[in-house]
Amino acid sequence: MSNSAYSTATYRLYDDKADFDKKATGIAVGLTVGSWTELPEVAKQQMEKYLGKVVSVDVHDGSGEPGTRYADITIAYPDLNFSRDLPAFLVTVFGKLSMDGRIKLLDVQPSAEFLQALPGPKFGAAGVRDLLGVHDRPLVMSIFKSVIGYDLPNLREQFLQQALGGVDLIKDDEILFENPLSPLEKRVPACIGAASEAEQQTGQKLIYFTNLTGPTYELRDNAKRAVEAGANGLLFNVLAYGFDALAGLAADPDIPVPIAAHPAMAGAMYPSPHYGISAPLLLGKLVRMAGADLSLFPSPYGSVVMPKEENLAVRDALLSDKLPHKKAFPVPSAGIHPGLVPLILKDFGPEVVVNAGGGVHGHPGGAAAGGKAFRQAVDAVLRGTSLEDYAAETGHEELKAAIERWGVRTS
Amino acid sequence: MSNSAYSTATYRLYDDKADFDKKATGIAVGLTVGSWTELPEVAKQQMEKYLGKVVSVDVHDGSGEPGTRYADITIAYPDLNFSRDLPAFLVTVFGKLSMDGRIKLLDVQPSAEFLQALPGPKFGAAGVRDLLGVHDRPLVMSIFKSVIGYDLPNLREQFLQQALGGVDLIKDDEILFENPLSPLEKRVPACIGAASEAEQQTGQKLIYFTNLTGPTYELRDNAKRAVEAGANGLLFNVLAYGFDALAGLAADPDIPVPIAAHPAMAGAMYPSPHYGISAPLLLGKLVRMAGADLSLFPSPYGSVVMPKEENLAVRDALLSDKLPHKKAFPVPSAGIHPGLVPLILKDFGPEVVVNAGGGVHGHPGGAAAGGKAFRQAVDAVLRGTSLEDYAAETGHEELKAAIERWGVRTS
Repeated sequence: MSNSAYSTATYRLYDDKADFDKKATGIAVGLTVGSWTELPEVAKQQMEKYLGKVVSVDVHDGSGEPGTRYADITIAYPDLNFSRDLPAFLVTVFGKLSMDGRIKLLDVQPSAEFLQALPGPKFGAAGVRDLLGVHDRPLVMSIFKSVIGYDLPNLREQFLQQALGGVDLIKDDEILFENPLSPLEKRVPACIGAASEAEQQTGQKLIYFTNLTGPTYELRDNAKRAVEAGANGLLFNVLAYGFDALAGLAADPDIPVPIAAHPAMAGAMYPSPHYGISAPLLLGKLVRMAGADLSLFPSPYGSVVMPKEENLAVRDALLSDKLPHKKAFPVPSAGIHPGLVPLILKDFGPEVVVNAGGGVHGHPGGAAAGGKAFRQAVDAVLRGTSLEDYAAETGHEELKAAIERWGVRTS
Repeated sequence: MSNSAYSTATYRLYDDKADFDKKATGIAVGLTVGSWTELPEVAKQQMEKYLGKVVSVDVHDGSGEPGTRYADITIAYPDLNFSRDLPAFLVTVFGKLSMDGRIKLLDVQPSAEFLQALPGPKFGAAGVRDLLGVHDRPLVMSIFKSVIGYDLPNLREQFLQQALGGVDLIKDDEILFENPLSPLEKRVPACIGAASEAEQQTGQKLIYFTNLTGPTYELRDNAKRAVEAGANGLLFNVLAYGFDALAGLAADPDIPVPIAAHPAMAGAMYPSPHYGISAPLLLGKLVRMAGADLSLFPSPYGSVVMPKEENLAVRDALLSDKLPHKKAFPVPSAGIHPGLVPLILKDFGPEVVVNAGGGVHGHPGGAAAGGKAFRQAVDAVLRGTSLEDYAAETGHEELKAAIERWGVRTS
């Protein structure tokens, strides 16, 4: 354990009157050694290596209107103070402090040493591409529509129709839990069987992200049961279990499949300007450090929205070169239809998963036609052709029907 | 599994224009069967038992000013839809929905069947009293002051001084993680040894809440190691690990000690009026259902504050007769000194833990005197004597010094 490594955290504090420099010093001392100025010199020498440091205090006085004055404060915490796991790190930098007035955790920059202790994605975006054998285009993911109350034959048929559309990835609904109608050990073989059946027609591989659920201390066993049953991917409600539960899955060599992190419950933490954890940190950096290969988050296009600049910051955190970990696929979700594909690729770039539920199942020709329409839309963009022109070509009837249904949105 | 059990969730939604009745129906359908009106009749008959129901929509039109119109909406979810664990329940009622605009989860009322599947506290407030043999007064807890960078002899001495003051409970600092200076297996015997030493002088039992830390999937083993090393209580940063990690500890018969839940990170979720999870639910009902014997939360007296009505609602959730689980001790924390004891007991009633850090260690006579001052303050209230009068009596010099230091606050 190095004596000189520090990890930083950056906060935004709103306060109309506070002495932010004093506040920053209070955080740096209070969340580390507890007290400082009153310590005798000899104790200071001993304790100095445990003492937090103020890195920067950037005050914005605002308009003078109440509620507009804030400061962005960065504190460096000695790695000596916490163990090499995310609960220890998060409790250190945003445990008690989260309750100390209007304060939001904007970002963290763990030390190189701490980052090395975190697994990061097992496959990453590139590894997922390798599994699929798809390297030259954005991926397309389809979400089950209705699943609760469906029996296995119905789920299998729904899966098959999605797979026949040529999508690369299919994910369970995040609210599908262990249940008598479609238990994990039967659902996985049924869906994987449908994937094989579709592959014979489409020639294309497919990853099925099975929802990993159950009690925390059974998750690793459940994941292994899923893999034994044939699962080649897992969906995980990471915020309901904590980031470290994901890290333990990602670090386990006996769970050799990619993991897609679902943002369920994230809205309890990121949307407020005054409290919580910023979306790029919560759904970007932390999800990636903890080991998700894909991270779903609200797209800027649907009814469940996130402002576009936040979306792009989430993407940047997932794809940044600054982390030692593999890159994770951004999956902007909700409100996606084929007519949005050019905009998505313009906004997010080529390393993105185009993910749709209603935009697949709501296609006038059904889910298989919906998947085809998405693939055609991706092809159009890659060829540099407008969706409308591409849709007019023979063999692209599915895209044509999708555009008639939903239109094309270019900004 | 009963076909007729429902669990409810109540939300507050802010929206200046929304049709809240339509919104409620959208939640009830969208988070259960997915679609309804377009289903054929025969499918409706099959699916009806999986369909959510709108229980109530209570619209408050506000002042007409933007941002003041809201509705409290209660939805009933069929228990059929989720497994018997808190992650499944929370993802069902506040997963995707948490990201759907200005919405806060105010309360949940799980079905009797679901509640039965949750452990609740293993000991509860009454069980903790039995362990201590203290039934006739509020308990007094002391928090370690500075711990980071302290070696075992120093920690032991700090523990001993606190114990000599006659406190009932001593808790680790929540930011004390596994470290070379005070590893769990050495820290626990050192502190428990100090507790025994103090008991020979005070005649009083003491519970030491050791901070349970480490990777999620090692928590149960670490808890058992702590117990084997002599720990008679555990502190747990429940929100860093998820409620179910606590439930798994509480349900484990091989972890036969009470658990105190620390609210670290809670401020990321409860303070905003528009987002997140209400404090009484987060730090009251959920913490109790998951199995904490004590729940710490910000007191209304210190610098890290929570409004008093929220404090009392947290207390009510911890002590309510409406849950089948044992009651959990409310532990309002931060800013507590002996001069506040009458107010705390007036506000919270007799089933409360008076918890202090600075109010113990900052006593002019040291931590042992600090603990004595708290015990004297409790005795004064129970005898119906004012603190000032009680402090003037011979043998109550510690209370006298505390009042000189911090004063008495009666409202």
